Amino acid sequence: MDKQLIDAFTKATQEVFAMMAGIEVGENKIVKDKQQKIYGDVSGVIGFTDKFSENINGSIVLALPLSLAKKAVANMLAINESELEEEDIQDGIGELVNMIAGDAKSKCNNAFKISLPTVITGLHHSIGKIKEEIVIVKFKNNEETFYLQISLEEK
Amino acid sequence: MDKQLIDAFTKATQEVFAMMAGIEVGENKIVKDKQQKIYGDVSGVIGFTDKFSENINGSIVLALPLSLAKKAVANMLAINESELEEEDIQDGIGELVNMIAGDAKSKCNNAFKISLPTVITGLHHSIGKIKEEIVIVKFKNNEETFYLQISLEEK
Repeated sequence: MDKQLIDAFTKATQEVFAMMAGIEVGENKIVKDKQQKIYGDVSGVIGFTDKFSENINGSIVLALPLSLAKKAVANMLAINESELEEEDIQDGIGELVNMIAGDAKSKCNNAFKISLPTVITGLHHSIGKIKEEIVIVKFKNNEETFYLQISLEEK
Repeated sequence: MDKQLIDAFTKATQEVFAMMAGIEVGENKIVKDKQQKIYGDVSGVIGFTDKFSENINGSIVLALPLSLAKKAVANMLAINESELEEEDIQDGIGELVNMIAGDAKSKCNNAFKISLPTVITGLHHSIGKIKEEIVIVKFKNNEETFYLQISLEEK
């Protein structure tokens, strides 16, 4: 997969978490083991398509543990975590993944278009890997980890 | 939301289920209650973007109970449900939602592009509604129900 694309999504994730959710991402690394399954409690999904042709299509999944999703959204809304409803968490994570994809898009000179985000919540759900090229970036905030899965098909 | 688009996705869902998974969809209706939350055990998500401009973007979620997802994929692969691994179910439902989106796209004269599908599995997860326009179509096969949520933002 294009290194520029992976870098754009990785940097966008770090910057959006820091700026919008006050969460510093301590480190990130690409998980090379293609067999590794990833899980989340709150996952934001967004698709992307090539702007000029039909050559590229892909999708990203931001998969978070519930504790980190709550922390991020509470910070974004400047309210206490105890006040959060499930809808707030879904809206907030949808906004976050939308900003990450939008920022990555602008880092790639707007070479692709992004779809509307979808957010799914449910404890310990599993994120599927389709058979196209996949990169998983593992991020760490203190002791918590979260993932960004990037799937891409280039024709 | 554009009636043609809703019809295209509804018909595509029925046709793909019948043709690819041997599952007849007995009836369908649009759920008008915007407050209704929908849940799935296996959900396929796919984004779409306008082909010619940046005016339309959206996403669909096909949310299935596990029993129906297994039945569909076992039929697609012509194997017994007991032989299915989680990866088979994720791949199969990814293919199904991809075919539904592709068929709906051709019914709409290829006016939009579709992203790669993402599949999430986890018992009774909740599908978020972002704040854009949303239509939920409820389908029935015998006593089982499943949902297609269509989200659209038109600029």
